[in-house]
Amino acid sequence: MAPSTTLKGDQFDCAQFEALVKRRFFFSESFEIYRTAPNFQGDNRGLYDYGPPGCALQTNIVDVWRKHFVLEENMLEVDCTVITPETVLKTSGHVDKFADWMCKDLAKGEYLRADHLVENVLQSRLASGAKGTTKKDPKLDEATIKLYNEILAQIDNYDGPELGQLIKEHDIRNPDGNGEVQPPIPFNLMFRSTVGPSAAAPVYLRPETAQGQFLNFRKLLEFNQGAMPFASASIGKSYRNEISPRSGLLRVREFLMAEIEYYVDPDAKEHERFHEVTSLELPLLAKQTQLDGKTTLRKMSIEDAVKSKTIDNETLGYFLGRIMLFLLKVGVDPSKLRFRQHLDNEMAHYACDCWDAELFTSHGWIECVGCADRSAYDLTVHSNFTGYPLTVRELLQTGPIRVEVWQALLDKKLVGPRFKRDAKVVQDSVEALAQPVLEKLAADLEINGIITLDTIKPLADGRSAVELSKDLLTIKKVAHLQTTRQYTPNVIEPSFGIGRILYSVLEHTYWHRPQDAARAVLSLPLAVAPTKVLIVPLSAQPQFVPITRRLSSRLRALGISNNIDSSSASIGKRYARNDELGTPLGITVDFDTVVNGSITLRDRDSTAQLRGSEDDVLKAVKSLVGGNESWEEIAQYLKPFSTLEQDES
Amino acid sequence: MAPSTTLKGDQFDCAQFEALVKRRFFFSESFEIYRTAPNFQGDNRGLYDYGPPGCALQTNIVDVWRKHFVLEENMLEVDCTVITPETVLKTSGHVDKFADWMCKDLAKGEYLRADHLVENVLQSRLASGAKGTTKKDPKLDEATIKLYNEILAQIDNYDGPELGQLIKEHDIRNPDGNGEVQPPIPFNLMFRSTVGPSAAAPVYLRPETAQGQFLNFRKLLEFNQGAMPFASASIGKSYRNEISPRSGLLRVREFLMAEIEYYVDPDAKEHERFHEVTSLELPLLAKQTQLDGKTTLRKMSIEDAVKSKTIDNETLGYFLGRIMLFLLKVGVDPSKLRFRQHLDNEMAHYACDCWDAELFTSHGWIECVGCADRSAYDLTVHSNFTGYPLTVRELLQTGPIRVEVWQALLDKKLVGPRFKRDAKVVQDSVEALAQPVLEKLAADLEINGIITLDTIKPLADGRSAVELSKDLLTIKKVAHLQTTRQYTPNVIEPSFGIGRILYSVLEHTYWHRPQDAARAVLSLPLAVAPTKVLIVPLSAQPQFVPITRRLSSRLRALGISNNIDSSSASIGKRYARNDELGTPLGITVDFDTVVNGSITLRDRDSTAQLRGSEDDVLKAVKSLVGGNESWEEIAQYLKPFSTLEQDES
Repeated sequence: MAPSTTLKGDQFDCAQFEALVKRRFFFSESFEIYRTAPNFQGDNRGLYDYGPPGCALQTNIVDVWRKHFVLEENMLEVDCTVITPETVLKTSGHVDKFADWMCKDLAKGEYLRADHLVENVLQSRLASGAKGTTKKDPKLDEATIKLYNEILAQIDNYDGPELGQLIKEHDIRNPDGNGEVQPPIPFNLMFRSTVGPSAAAPVYLRPETAQGQFLNFRKLLEFNQGAMPFASASIGKSYRNEISPRSGLLRVREFLMAEIEYYVDPDAKEHERFHEVTSLELPLLAKQTQLDGKTTLRKMSIEDAVKSKTIDNETLGYFLGRIMLFLLKVGVDPSKLRFRQHLDNEMAHYACDCWDAELFTSHGWIECVGCADRSAYDLTVHSNFTGYPLTVRELLQTGPIRVEVWQALLDKKLVGPRFKRDAKVVQDSVEALAQPVLEKLAADLEINGIITLDTIKPLADGRSAVELSKDLLTIKKVAHLQTTRQYTPNVIEPSFGIGRILYSVLEHTYWHRPQDAARAVLSLPLAVAPTKVLIVPLSAQPQFVPITRRLSSRLRALGISNNIDSSSASIGKRYARNDELGTPLGITVDFDTVVNGSITLRDRDSTAQLRGSEDDVLKAVKSLVGGNESWEEIAQYLKPFSTLEQDES
Repeated sequence: MAPSTTLKGDQFDCAQFEALVKRRFFFSESFEIYRTAPNFQGDNRGLYDYGPPGCALQTNIVDVWRKHFVLEENMLEVDCTVITPETVLKTSGHVDKFADWMCKDLAKGEYLRADHLVENVLQSRLASGAKGTTKKDPKLDEATIKLYNEILAQIDNYDGPELGQLIKEHDIRNPDGNGEVQPPIPFNLMFRSTVGPSAAAPVYLRPETAQGQFLNFRKLLEFNQGAMPFASASIGKSYRNEISPRSGLLRVREFLMAEIEYYVDPDAKEHERFHEVTSLELPLLAKQTQLDGKTTLRKMSIEDAVKSKTIDNETLGYFLGRIMLFLLKVGVDPSKLRFRQHLDNEMAHYACDCWDAELFTSHGWIECVGCADRSAYDLTVHSNFTGYPLTVRELLQTGPIRVEVWQALLDKKLVGPRFKRDAKVVQDSVEALAQPVLEKLAADLEINGIITLDTIKPLADGRSAVELSKDLLTIKKVAHLQTTRQYTPNVIEPSFGIGRILYSVLEHTYWHRPQDAARAVLSLPLAVAPTKVLIVPLSAQPQFVPITRRLSSRLRALGISNNIDSSSASIGKRYARNDELGTPLGITVDFDTVVNGSITLRDRDSTAQLRGSEDDVLKAVKSLVGGNESWEEIAQYLKPFSTLEQDES
């Protein structure tokens, strides 16, 4: 069904594309009628509403995602709340570290994201070939051009102070007004609120769906009857209070995410289904290439990439392959896809390796899917804070083994009288001690005869530590027959930005008919097209009404979304409207239908038409939608039909 | 597939039901491991996570909803942002009026919702038969019992001061500690935050999806090619900062809503498909019955209810019927459903008539769907604030008519020189004047020879009004041939709380096998069951593995969700687990399968089993899931199979 590439316009016409998206209400700025109202004060940037075709496209992409990942691999899908207590996000590191660097332009009173500022200014200098935006400014020399390109290739690698240094060195100013900017300061990207009437309970809107999944790890493991490895998944809105969102759907403050958390034994990152993806070729942009200041892609089979350690392990490689297959299924142009490895400074605070699937759009290469190995970071920090074990205990495959472990023993006869109602807290605090801590305390106790122990709860008098001397506490190494092994799983996380994928798919499937630049088409795949079939009666005559209604209801019974357009526009115009909506199939009802029951089936991309009985055409539609037959195959039992498609009425 | 009523336990066992929901992870409190952590401070009440079966059940209910409403009637589904600027919700009335009344117990430092306080205390007094909670307290007399029941029957009808009066009169105190409470004060139920780094842009999390739909009305009308009536719809999270949420899933701070906004000509509230629902009988609890202090239901056909004006109009009646059909489809017990009309004080600030579909649960009758006639309220206030017309203009059916209208004319030759660069603003401001304003200004101009006009934008010097004298401005009545009619549509809004419906369905479909109270079953309908088919091999022997995998993959290809349980528990135990998960069908693979390829199909509710070839059983499963054949019909081509179902291994 994809149009042959020769049909595609070579030049992507941004203005025409945006006009189409707006005209057909795929999406638009939220609260638009307020934004233009004279008395509105507020900031609605970075917020978008999906109109009917955009909403259906989004639903269909999510549906394909759920089938491709969740149902295909029996992932455990959960739906957790967006509202998250501050403590949880403090533990996960987001309260302290989930921030972007921003600079204030004092003259304009405007905040600018520091890395975007550097990027925009250097790019526009390169574009004009001069140390400014116009050709009158002093020309850039070869060395400067090289330097700028090197900076841009690793723009995501700089922290705040480094960005401040670049801004100073290269005299980077606010392009809007040329004002100087203040040094970068961090701005936390989470929306904050409070819950309940007392205002004493601070919460944030989650910046990712992951934390809710991690907190439910033990329940999920139990639901999975203890079997490892397994994956949880979640589809839902997340929020980032972007400093100054532009670029439309690509940088928004509220967005739909689909995230998978794959829990795996850190010592066994092989994947059972790895063999299914080994021969897939991925377009890779590895870390070292970027550090060399280059952006050249390298095609590599997943097998080779994992063997050469370009991709760290089988599980990561498996998911990169599955991600590529998903993206192609929903309409991504394979020539506009690359997998870019994160640079060390760029990686999220929790990640130990990360690859982004990036899609090329008129805004450049855009991160649409992240695939990170978050190691045991999240489960460990939540477990440490709550004291609740987020671990797996497995029977040792090798049978029981003899190990030596540190053991702490309190003299129970002395503890009770000494600590009275705090005795239980002291006892619990000793039992909560981990092996490395015990080892250290054993040495301290040996040397000093006394140690200080932090308690897991405050004591009756408010203190949160006690002193324990040798007479009370013994710490020694004991032999132990170990039958099980306990570990904190590592987490591999493929994380999808549905809105960014949706936008890229719209750009990738957009073209116009060669004979007429105004006749645009969105070649959305059948699987995700908002409406599968358009039903058009030749005219608004009443004799067509029962036929189109019956067709619509029969298609609905087959689970195939459809629309009747009986408006007074010409058939050509009605088809042109639906080409812009990406409707792949059209059924025409005309006077012959009334006479002999035959109807016409039209293919959006080629405008080819076939004719047959209602039953045969519906059978063909069902086959096409189900992916069981191609247009060529249904042409075997339907007759060719030719008519000049009218452009104008 | 529904169990015969004799199988149902007569007593609903709340504790057992809750244990099942928790054990099978349908849902649980969010951040549970934090709540029990010693050092956690926060408030996570009213926040719930859905585990795998709850999440799948939710997805399936939403899917049925989308098919039943959106696809069936070609509604225009949109997805708008949760984050909403304060100005929008100020205009809609939510900032001022979307509040509950709460009382503070100074001794406990606790906030209580005022109506719930009155309700709980009076109910517990009625239950104990005494003016307190114990039988030692003075006995209630007949008159007091009658009075309490009358108050409870219209508990939703009282405003804050009235609740305060009741609390004083009846000496109502905090049941927890018996402390006196302060008079009720309003508490706004919206979560507040700010957007962007400047903190000057206050926003709220939306309390309903409706406002986003209203703001897009004109785009939607255009997308619908100008045709009226039509509906928009939206499925998404909404937020209410409840004062003190209890009752589990039934009163939460974050919840999934599905809302329809049906835009209709206020003079034509007939509905094209009304005839499809006229004979449906609804269990009604009308306004007057409640004001009489009664709760008796009256069964009435929709036709009669609309004819007698019990239900205001056809469109409202049509949607109440469609709502009932939807609820029954997802598993609601028809004997636990009623439609209750709102009392006048209870109605939301925008509504002119409203019916709730209420479902009976162990927490009493719960509002699960609201169906309100919001009149033209929302479109009017947004249009007034923004100056953007949210109206419909239609050709007059009667042909053109002659009308007289007020017309204002500026002398263009004088306006330019007088107002210079403000001339356009003055011109636009005059053109924006509505008919009633023009009529008043005409009189003023006649009397004073001069008027003051507020401008739609500030002028160059900052003023926002100009004086216009008779020489510049003429206002007169002119005859006008009117060909179109302009009106603001009324909105009928069916609004669904998905979480409450889901919870009620779980209660309504819960029962246990008569021979064993511990063997619980959830008789979820096939359409919404989290997993449709359980595949169980007789044992974990390797010879069964390729067979179960093939069955699973064939079912998946048919779009039928399934799970393999090859754990070591007995077949009976594995079936019992899946009865609790509501899995309607089971397929058993045993040694005969290896020999002759036959497999067994089990029905969850009756535990009946049928046997046949793999192809025949899969055909039967497909028919059952698609709703094309019943168990009795598939029994025609499959053979009866009988085995004792083992309860224990």
